Amino acid sequence: MRTDVKINPWERVDDLHRKGYHIIQDPKRFCFGVDAVILSGFARVKKGEKALDLGTGTGIIPILLEGRTAGQHFTGLEIQTESAEMARRSVALNELEEKVDIVEGDIKEAAALFGGSVFDVVTSNPPYMNEGGGLQNPSGPKAIARHEILCTLEDVVSQAAKVLRPGGRFYMVHRPHRLTDILVLLRQYRLEPKRLRFVHSYVDKPPVMVLVEAGRGGRPMIKVEAPLVIYEEAGKYTQEIYDIYYGEGQA
Amino acid sequence: MRTDVKINPWERVDDLHRKGYHIIQDPKRFCFGVDAVILSGFARVKKGEKALDLGTGTGIIPILLEGRTAGQHFTGLEIQTESAEMARRSVALNELEEKVDIVEGDIKEAAALFGGSVFDVVTSNPPYMNEGGGLQNPSGPKAIARHEILCTLEDVVSQAAKVLRPGGRFYMVHRPHRLTDILVLLRQYRLEPKRLRFVHSYVDKPPVMVLVEAGRGGRPMIKVEAPLVIYEEAGKYTQEIYDIYYGEGQA
Repeated sequence: MRTDVKINPWERVDDLHRKGYHIIQDPKRFCFGVDAVILSGFARVKKGEKALDLGTGTGIIPILLEGRTAGQHFTGLEIQTESAEMARRSVALNELEEKVDIVEGDIKEAAALFGGSVFDVVTSNPPYMNEGGGLQNPSGPKAIARHEILCTLEDVVSQAAKVLRPGGRFYMVHRPHRLTDILVLLRQYRLEPKRLRFVHSYVDKPPVMVLVEAGRGGRPMIKVEAPLVIYEEAGKYTQEIYDIYYGEGQA
Repeated sequence: MRTDVKINPWERVDDLHRKGYHIIQDPKRFCFGVDAVILSGFARVKKGEKALDLGTGTGIIPILLEGRTAGQHFTGLEIQTESAEMARRSVALNELEEKVDIVEGDIKEAAALFGGSVFDVVTSNPPYMNEGGGLQNPSGPKAIARHEILCTLEDVVSQAAKVLRPGGRFYMVHRPHRLTDILVLLRQYRLEPKRLRFVHSYVDKPPVMVLVEAGRGGRPMIKVEAPLVIYEEAGKYTQEIYDIYYGEGQA
């Protein structure tokens, strides 16, 4: 870890438990959650591939994926200037400037920014909530990260479809109550859903998240996987979650 | 159980463990499976409601639903003459002629047969397989029950949408690998998916079935429920499955 990267007094630096990587976060803005970590465990980036993360926030997903996969290059797209600047400092902190780019820009402009059919993999942990009305502070960074204020699910899916090469893969984490919207939009934009995994806090409870893999131009056949369970009991992670946080990366 | 109903020597009579009901089956044709039983536990039929089962086979679903719900009337539609005739004998065996009708006819003609907006509930355990090619005996009763030979998933969904009253509910059991097709078709025919439950043989294995409830004209918001697990260990049902087979019905 480099020591000459500026850390503001209101920021904190967290250990990612992977290759000694750390990340800078501002608790007043938005801290990454278990969803980003689980998505980085679900997404497959093969040797030599290029990946784009739509709405990267702190840059957590590109940095984790760089740490656990043999992908060649990772780009994070982030619309909020302060988040993008902070993510860039996290990249510098880990000396990943050659492997990870943070680009400030709008998800809705992704294809215009990067061009069509240029990435092998696209990931996204987008805003989950489509009930934007009545928000107390709709311009705050937490609201922007959580609610469909600056981009909708359709923006994410349609842009992912454009920037992916044929045969490329899209990975997203979202909320189960949006499942119909997710599968309908993916098929509409010819990103055929291929793999689905529900994430449950406890094995006998409804899922709290859903992980989806779609293939640009794949044939219609989805594989629903075994449940991914977070807690064995209160406060105790299951072995699988423990491995995602602390275990080996992909071959 | 009436004793003057004809049972052919190649048929068997199985106890349904509910109100003393029995069902006639021909092992050479098709015997109901755990999917039909689980669907009858998932479907809600309220007091006074009328339900239609599309592709009823032995009549298992209308007979089980009559036994476990306060619904007023149940109709089973079946295209195969021999199955419809056998199902009618099961209805007579249980003295349910006033509550259950078995109608011989084609799912594709359901709206023409019954009229539009006439049922509160539609259920279906349709053929699962859309890979009809290469079947050794595509006109056999087992093939017709399992493969989309005489009707497709779209036929089932489109006819259900027609015969349901606004606000009516559609319940189906199917295979998880068809999930995208299922949700896309339901939304296309304005049967909004409301409730989804995956059925797993064991809790740590991929699901083997999916149960779906859709509402005619509901708002887009799906509730994915906790996994339904069949076996605690090899040969031992979980309590929930035991209750579906042997427990109390709906209030």
